[in-house]
Amino acid sequence: MAKVSPPPECLFKPMNFPHKVLMGPGPSNCPPRVLGASALPMLGPMHPEFTLIMDEVKAGIKYIFQTNNEWTVCVTGSGHAAMETACLNLLEPGDTVLVGINGLWGERFADMVHRQGIDVKTLHRPTGEVFTFEEIEEALKKHKPTLLSLTHGESTGGTLQPLEGIGTLCHKYNCLLLVDSIASCGGVPLFMDLWGIDCLYTGAQKVLSAPSGASPISFSKRAKEKVKNRLTEVRSLYFDMNHLANYWGCDGEARRYHHTGPTSCIYAIRESLAVLAEQGLEESWKKHKHCAELLYEGLEKIGLELLVKDKSIRNPCVTVVKVPDGVDWKSVIEYTRKTYRVEIGSGLGVLVGKVWRIGLMGYNCTPDNVRLVLRVLEEALRVTRTAKL
Amino acid sequence: MAKVSPPPECLFKPMNFPHKVLMGPGPSNCPPRVLGASALPMLGPMHPEFTLIMDEVKAGIKYIFQTNNEWTVCVTGSGHAAMETACLNLLEPGDTVLVGINGLWGERFADMVHRQGIDVKTLHRPTGEVFTFEEIEEALKKHKPTLLSLTHGESTGGTLQPLEGIGTLCHKYNCLLLVDSIASCGGVPLFMDLWGIDCLYTGAQKVLSAPSGASPISFSKRAKEKVKNRLTEVRSLYFDMNHLANYWGCDGEARRYHHTGPTSCIYAIRESLAVLAEQGLEESWKKHKHCAELLYEGLEKIGLELLVKDKSIRNPCVTVVKVPDGVDWKSVIEYTRKTYRVEIGSGLGVLVGKVWRIGLMGYNCTPDNVRLVLRVLEEALRVTRTAKL
Repeated sequence: MAKVSPPPECLFKPMNFPHKVLMGPGPSNCPPRVLGASALPMLGPMHPEFTLIMDEVKAGIKYIFQTNNEWTVCVTGSGHAAMETACLNLLEPGDTVLVGINGLWGERFADMVHRQGIDVKTLHRPTGEVFTFEEIEEALKKHKPTLLSLTHGESTGGTLQPLEGIGTLCHKYNCLLLVDSIASCGGVPLFMDLWGIDCLYTGAQKVLSAPSGASPISFSKRAKEKVKNRLTEVRSLYFDMNHLANYWGCDGEARRYHHTGPTSCIYAIRESLAVLAEQGLEESWKKHKHCAELLYEGLEKIGLELLVKDKSIRNPCVTVVKVPDGVDWKSVIEYTRKTYRVEIGSGLGVLVGKVWRIGLMGYNCTPDNVRLVLRVLEEALRVTRTAKL
Repeated sequence: MAKVSPPPECLFKPMNFPHKVLMGPGPSNCPPRVLGASALPMLGPMHPEFTLIMDEVKAGIKYIFQTNNEWTVCVTGSGHAAMETACLNLLEPGDTVLVGINGLWGERFADMVHRQGIDVKTLHRPTGEVFTFEEIEEALKKHKPTLLSLTHGESTGGTLQPLEGIGTLCHKYNCLLLVDSIASCGGVPLFMDLWGIDCLYTGAQKVLSAPSGASPISFSKRAKEKVKNRLTEVRSLYFDMNHLANYWGCDGEARRYHHTGPTSCIYAIRESLAVLAEQGLEESWKKHKHCAELLYEGLEKIGLELLVKDKSIRNPCVTVVKVPDGVDWKSVIEYTRKTYRVEIGSGLGVLVGKVWRIGLMGYNCTPDNVRLVLRVLEEALRVTRTAKL
């Protein structure tokens, strides 16, 4: 037998675990009930007890998406995995995609599409702004895309893209509507069926306040037809909705083994969907609106300015705050982290160093947390300014 | 505001949770310590405390793979996600792949490659057999592949593919060696560097006895060069090793946000790697061999026959047992499940109805569990036979 290299020393020490208040753009803290569910014992991917839990998850997703779509599942992976599932299933060579880019998430989707060798057209808005109905219609006319992709809650700029009417508009131009609701679903009104959204996905670690690892996605009848009528195979076995829909019991056929689902993540998301069901979507939407308004008010009081001026297009789940002139953004984040274990998010992409991002999502969205984040932010601004003098 | 559809009734009831002994081909039961780690509080994907845990996971993977490869990470997804990561990064149009098929996993890999429009050649052996050095060399000469894919522990047939010398052989023919060790890594000797394996992956839910959701994968220097020298972009942003290697701190550059890792799965796999490090690989290999031998002996005693005759090519982690003539395989599985909550696996693919599969992996691999499974299997055979008379 060959000589075995020794185990690494670092694994002989316990993990270092600070309890933090995660007030950035995600992940959120999980309620103890959801963490507890993560620790429940394993079941096999085809065990009836597990497929029952999958059915409950599916029912919960239909509720938070407000949809009756048959093809409603969780992808095994982070929100990016759901994004890639949408891209790989809905598109094939010959398609043209129109991607609305007003932050990182649109850029990411365009990157994914580009890698498939599919024609990508882009519609740009500065981060912090949203697209108008008129410019979308103009772009649909011009590019004749088969798919329009928009980000509902753009966590880069803190915007909320108005979606009412866009589905109908897309269908008029024979185009499907894909919506990324990772940073908004559950926290603001969202009606997949009513608004004619053809593919919608979200993540577990935002408003749902569950660990990342299983990501909800749903396809409308129209979107499902598009997948069923593909001329080419889906370029991924792992993300192939034909298989996933069967494994999730969406096609009326007996379930066949496809892959081993992320058991503990499925337990956790099932429990977080139960939390949201018990609270009720309307209450959750109200709570997010209320807390966000408290936050806006408090931020203005301590002299901070929001990136998004127009309140009606602000995403209550993620608030983007401008770093005032002369303030060292990094010191502020480090101060709140080191002194209070409160995590505030930094800027992404073009906004690195120019903004902070404050998340109020799900379990973390409480007036107490708003007061906490305002208090530590005010103190951090004071202390880091003084330190520099 | 539109009318909101009500939440589903099923989410108002608690989850149904039988504690089972999972003696199938995976998932295994998780030790309480690993389940406990799953329930630890969230950290952000870029928090220094989390990246430290990622570093520890990386060190643990290098240990169980016995490798010093820089590009060693976890993919966010099940073992199939790691398989797809290997396929998407190592191959591009113009490549030729040789896939050894002696069970479902080779078929799956061939399917993944085929979906990329890449030339797939296959080498077949009936399930329950392995490939010889000579036939591999012959196929390498004939097809001149750029990649050879083999399954180390084929859980379909219960075989263990001998790998010593295959790496050197592949390199002689300018070919990379890819190995699937999902159902074997940690339970049997495996030396990635020494054996010249260029890409190796495993799953969390087998010998590691952690929940599925984060899957270890490693690329040799040669494999990394192949990825770096691609003429085309990797056809997935999510699985692109250039990004994953950076996010996992493998490229010497500052980590950039790529996606939100599956926090609770990473905690769990970190803890399961610690369990294996504390036990020591040699002890683990010994334990799996010992328990498997107890199982073989006991099965023969109750008159059952193993699919794989040659002991030297049996995978101690998954034992495939023939269903005797006249026995209803399904009733036996249902009996052990209903009477004792002991789960025994059914056959896969061509072997459905013809075999049972008994897993002895990680936490579940104990002489007590061997005795338990033998006892319930014997009883089930007796009872179901009598019932039929």
